[in-house]
Amino acid sequence: MRILLTNDDGIFAEGLCALYDALCADHEIFVVAPEAERSAVGHAITLVDPLRVKKVKRGRYFFGYAVNGTPADCVKLAIHEIIGPEIDLVLSGINRGANVGINVLYSGTVSAATEGVILGYPGIAVSLNAYREPDYCFAAYFTSCLLKSLVKMPEFGRFCLNVNIPALPPNKIKGIKFVRQSTARLIEKFERRVDPHGNVYYWQCSERFTEKDPETDVVALNEGFITITPLHHDLTADKAIQILKGWQIDF
Amino acid sequence: MRILLTNDDGIFAEGLCALYDALCADHEIFVVAPEAERSAVGHAITLVDPLRVKKVKRGRYFFGYAVNGTPADCVKLAIHEIIGPEIDLVLSGINRGANVGINVLYSGTVSAATEGVILGYPGIAVSLNAYREPDYCFAAYFTSCLLKSLVKMPEFGRFCLNVNIPALPPNKIKGIKFVRQSTARLIEKFERRVDPHGNVYYWQCSERFTEKDPETDVVALNEGFITITPLHHDLTADKAIQILKGWQIDF
Repeated sequence: MRILLTNDDGIFAEGLCALYDALCADHEIFVVAPEAERSAVGHAITLVDPLRVKKVKRGRYFFGYAVNGTPADCVKLAIHEIIGPEIDLVLSGINRGANVGINVLYSGTVSAATEGVILGYPGIAVSLNAYREPDYCFAAYFTSCLLKSLVKMPEFGRFCLNVNIPALPPNKIKGIKFVRQSTARLIEKFERRVDPHGNVYYWQCSERFTEKDPETDVVALNEGFITITPLHHDLTADKAIQILKGWQIDF
Repeated sequence: MRILLTNDDGIFAEGLCALYDALCADHEIFVVAPEAERSAVGHAITLVDPLRVKKVKRGRYFFGYAVNGTPADCVKLAIHEIIGPEIDLVLSGINRGANVGINVLYSGTVSAATEGVILGYPGIAVSLNAYREPDYCFAAYFTSCLLKSLVKMPEFGRFCLNVNIPALPPNKIKGIKFVRQSTARLIEKFERRVDPHGNVYYWQCSERFTEKDPETDVVALNEGFITITPLHHDLTADKAIQILKGWQIDF
């Protein structure tokens, strides 16, 4: 396959390089990724400022294109200008840290894959559930196996796939579970600090999921399953439309 | 009501001020908004950098709090730290420009309202379909009427409402339509330019909707209706889950 590879941790991130190395023997890989970390940018795009593209080497060899924009920008610019429309898959990751539950909305990694689907390509986001000293080896291997299986599956490419992989030794992983995105509340807080000049600032920190349903990404990943969640980009709350049609609004 | 008012055009934007003026006689308004324009930031949040808050005056009087973050940051920080949890509604807007179709995903205005719903509050995003010399007068008046009607409606507050208002004289507006978010493709392109130093840069520009379905936000707004779309933040592609459960993935 001709694969557009991107991420939100930046073009030099270990997770992206691991995926490149695992896939480059079997596929043609085009790397177009943010020049630096752009985590939690969600589906942000850059309209007010111009975008610039730099060729980037890894060691002595050309590796890909670094863009001063968001993951979604990278996908758009790659397809419209840098690589062209002849690609078979938009692959985003491997992200450092899981992208499950409400956090899917904040994820630049997932938004890049969604942008691929919006533009008419299959899109896959891959994340590893580890922040400290992540080992991407199994996650990259799993992704290469996943691609081999997926191309034979019915209706592959119609949905964005959000894949999350536990940071466990392969023999401890319980299998694959196809699950929903959890929408349960996150317990989150801000830490209030004072800078050396006496000014207050806030840092967002310490979130915790409240989800209990085992058929959700949050719980299944935590239990040791690789989770795969099909995502769409239609935000319409279908069931609400009929309720709203009964509303009377006077103006 | 106690209303948290925010936007993505920045705390000094005309659309936010128009909404404040239209609502402040009937409601208690708390303004917490980005210190500068943060359009198209989607559901971005700020994790890597700290957030700072400044009190802002309008003329001689205290107006609200400016945050060096995204619209979603503003909502989180307002509820967790600045204003507290005792609010009845998160209201975002009035945005300069419509937020319909695929653009809903990129919209900071809509994401602020969604963030309100994630945190357990009713959330409403209001946008005016005008970019050049927008007149927010009717849109602000309509929003005040909308709030009066909504509080009496069944199940109000369970969904995020995305409201788009045509930039037409009030007597040309055809009414209110409850519609879906269009997911039809956008025709978009980048303009390639060369800077004075000979370096290439790209500017995203000129998008055009391809939607034809009159029951979508894109078409109904264009036809002169005020559109109201209920949104959710569950991105699971429900119909796909069963298909995926039939997939065989070997690793």
